[in-house]
Amino acid sequence: MRWARFDNKGTASYGIVEGEQILPVRGTPFGEWEKAGARQALAATKLLVPVIPPTFYACGLNYAEHIRETAAKVGQPVTLPEQPDVGYRANNALIAHGEQIIIPEDATEKVQYEGELVVVIGKKVKHLTRENALDCVLGYTIGNDVSERSWQKADRTLWRAKNTDTFKPMGPWIETDVELGKLVTRIRVNGRQLIEFPTNDMLFGVVDFLVRMTRYVTLFPGDVIWMGTEGATENLVHGDVCEIEITGIGTLCNPVVRAR
Amino acid sequence: MRWARFDNKGTASYGIVEGEQILPVRGTPFGEWEKAGARQALAATKLLVPVIPPTFYACGLNYAEHIRETAAKVGQPVTLPEQPDVGYRANNALIAHGEQIIIPEDATEKVQYEGELVVVIGKKVKHLTRENALDCVLGYTIGNDVSERSWQKADRTLWRAKNTDTFKPMGPWIETDVELGKLVTRIRVNGRQLIEFPTNDMLFGVVDFLVRMTRYVTLFPGDVIWMGTEGATENLVHGDVCEIEITGIGTLCNPVVRAR
Repeated sequence: MRWARFDNKGTASYGIVEGEQILPVRGTPFGEWEKAGARQALAATKLLVPVIPPTFYACGLNYAEHIRETAAKVGQPVTLPEQPDVGYRANNALIAHGEQIIIPEDATEKVQYEGELVVVIGKKVKHLTRENALDCVLGYTIGNDVSERSWQKADRTLWRAKNTDTFKPMGPWIETDVELGKLVTRIRVNGRQLIEFPTNDMLFGVVDFLVRMTRYVTLFPGDVIWMGTEGATENLVHGDVCEIEITGIGTLCNPVVRAR
Repeated sequence: MRWARFDNKGTASYGIVEGEQILPVRGTPFGEWEKAGARQALAATKLLVPVIPPTFYACGLNYAEHIRETAAKVGQPVTLPEQPDVGYRANNALIAHGEQIIIPEDATEKVQYEGELVVVIGKKVKHLTRENALDCVLGYTIGNDVSERSWQKADRTLWRAKNTDTFKPMGPWIETDVELGKLVTRIRVNGRQLIEFPTNDMLFGVVDFLVRMTRYVTLFPGDVIWMGTEGATENLVHGDVCEIEITGIGTLCNPVVRAR
């Protein structure tokens, strides 16, 4: 099942995507819901960020090749994480499928995409086990962890490097029927494929993170966990269109503009 | 004016604190509101976290003496921040005035308080100037940035060191009439005062952070910014009661228990 959040005559509503149509519901996939209203064409629908998370988690460095590339870019030695230590991103930076990634005037040319699987939590949970961990997952969506590498290197935290307004495209929707081992991530800029990797080839997988995180933290419905990216990323420039496809989920597509 | 959020017969409501009483309102201090219902005794009221922030910012290292002490504790050289780079904390960890700080079974004895001024944002703003920055502030509350120092030293991020469930007491309420230069922070454990410092003696002040942050990020009503703490903090143990007083705002008081 595919859950989208969309602009329903000025109100944010959830709907079920069926082929090229969307069926509005009353309620949300995180609680009670019922069908409400007529199907409408997906092509004529303004999609919104599929969920505004209570807490926005991000795994950061979670694929071997990307860690080597990032270390080189920021001038630090390569260190593979020894345990799944999660980090955070910020809601101000979220934009929906189709919305513009806006590069600030004073950013360098090193503004880069990162294509990520996003886990969407469906239930309030703590103390998950390896056996029951995935039961708390409502579904999966796609994130583009846009990053300004000079700020990532220079600042004490990742605040503006990763969380400048518009730097966190997420969508287009939440897919509930996913087999993690079969997913493939493909990143395209202006239609040209730059990166392809098996989505689940992570240093620490979804279950590893869920089990360790919930030893200490309660997860809530709508929390998201961005699982990291693979490969050597490249610069985005004004006029580019960046697409992150994860097979079986969909394609997150955002144009890039530079503020003047 | 003092805004509290409280349990109003099972529903979270805002109210105005007047002396020893609370006057319920319909609406919130972030939008429209009107008085609704009879005053009730503050002593008989269950206070809630005064706001659940869309984004939970924290300045981290922002007082000179604390930076030297923390560097020594985690075995790193002393480096004073050169610019106001904000970080993040997580909503799962928030608890209200009076609720228990629960130390996990596997935490070391190095679980410590940090008493912090908390800025509560009242309006959606970007591109603030030094002249208008404080206009976006609804008021101020108090935070206790409880930290497990061995995890702070060992982990790649601060996730469990700072964001274990119950590690972020915030409250008791939001005070709108504050003169930053006159505030004094006092930290007491079991009634014994351990630290006292002029709250506004920060490396980078509230205006510095607001101006720099909003060059890149939009602040939203309800966002909070925890401004950091001063001094050498000490361990909290089972049975302790930790109080953070900021003169003119109030006192945030939480008992400490260790899980078994």
